[in-house]
Amino acid sequence: MTGKKRDDGARYEEIADELRARIDSGQYAPGDRVPGENEIMTTFEVGRDTAWKALQVLRDQGLTETRQGAPTRVRKFERIVRPANKRLSREVWGDGKSMWSVDIVDKRPTPLDVEVQRVELDARIARMLGMEAGLPAVRRSRRYAIGAKPVMRAVSHIPADLADGTPIAEVDTGDGGIYGRLKDIGHAPTLFREEVRSRMPTKAEKDWLDIKRGTPVIEIIRYAAEESGRIVEVNEMILDSSSYVLEYVIPS
Amino acid sequence: MTGKKRDDGARYEEIADELRARIDSGQYAPGDRVPGENEIMTTFEVGRDTAWKALQVLRDQGLTETRQGAPTRVRKFERIVRPANKRLSREVWGDGKSMWSVDIVDKRPTPLDVEVQRVELDARIARMLGMEAGLPAVRRSRRYAIGAKPVMRAVSHIPADLADGTPIAEVDTGDGGIYGRLKDIGHAPTLFREEVRSRMPTKAEKDWLDIKRGTPVIEIIRYAAEESGRIVEVNEMILDSSSYVLEYVIPS
Repeated sequence: MTGKKRDDGARYEEIADELRARIDSGQYAPGDRVPGENEIMTTFEVGRDTAWKALQVLRDQGLTETRQGAPTRVRKFERIVRPANKRLSREVWGDGKSMWSVDIVDKRPTPLDVEVQRVELDARIARMLGMEAGLPAVRRSRRYAIGAKPVMRAVSHIPADLADGTPIAEVDTGDGGIYGRLKDIGHAPTLFREEVRSRMPTKAEKDWLDIKRGTPVIEIIRYAAEESGRIVEVNEMILDSSSYVLEYVIPS
Repeated sequence: MTGKKRDDGARYEEIADELRARIDSGQYAPGDRVPGENEIMTTFEVGRDTAWKALQVLRDQGLTETRQGAPTRVRKFERIVRPANKRLSREVWGDGKSMWSVDIVDKRPTPLDVEVQRVELDARIARMLGMEAGLPAVRRSRRYAIGAKPVMRAVSHIPADLADGTPIAEVDTGDGGIYGRLKDIGHAPTLFREEVRSRMPTKAEKDWLDIKRGTPVIEIIRYAAEESGRIVEVNEMILDSSSYVLEYVIPS
């Protein structure tokens, strides 16, 4: 059975790869029907199990979607551009989409479930902020959604000596958000550093983002530093990888 | 059976998440033994199947490794830092590791399997280069490895009118690589843009990178532009996500 399983594995992956290539190339456009189990069984000369698994790979990767009783279709969901350095992007590349891949649009996710707490820093976050563990901070967690689809979860920590008595400690931080309020009190961030990783989601992350088992997450840890070099915020973000493309512009 | 499967799914994922949390927190350090099937069966009060699946998740994610007949251990593989803007990183943050997570070291992967070809641009790459399809270009593909472990595959396209007659069209591009040679001929890139996505690997990508089924890849498309705005190179990179952390420094 292990022998059989392995062959099977290779075959359904090949079929999934072939179908993905057709989606990537635009042969199957968003909203188009993809071949069903029966069609795959005939075209690729495989059994129902293998056909089902191949389709499962596409669903798990967030490439297709199925509504109850309807055929499977290519997911209609344009990726969100996340331009890390908007100023640079606009200045240099303009708003021209000519250089962009076709699947990209400019969309702004809206916040959901904003939670604000006062916490004592644990060792990990304290290290990231360059502070002592146990010191007080404001923790802001929220999700962001496009329509009903959550696409990102973000958890920020801001030292309490900066956040206390400002809207940073309230649910609504006002126009310009956390960075706007830090600027108001003379602690504007002047430099950001982002660490980007990718991995499979935990169970909690799958629930937060409403993603399938086979969809990876992108993890971004963003450090915001003010002029003096002090870290004024650390933001840990978990993104649904199938919803995003990150953009970074880098001067040489 | 579907009902049972679902419960099972939730349970083995919970166990995998718990074990991953112990690895992330450093409770299980690189090289440490992780609990085996029997220990998981006792501790979590589950059957052998569930224990096996939980361990499989960790293996698939590249968090653990098993050598024939030996117990499963936490993978000893420090992530490669990929600083997108080295100059900025060094200038501003110095070489200080204090702000870094513990799993990061400075390592330089070595190139493998360099292949250089003259090609006619297909529509997709032509669009990325801002050129007409069918025009000639030099295509350079190579893999990069740390020791015996491949960690990245990269495919660059450079317009033939720039590359022809230079070491860019040869296997060894010399000190400073492609960008050094472009500089030599007065076409130094002055600005880079990177698009970053994450997804599950295709079968070919799994083979190139020697990764397990459950390990996502990071896809980076890097555009290099010279002063005039002309794109002088497009580089499509596929990274083993379990081997890398990307770093971007962004002035506000």
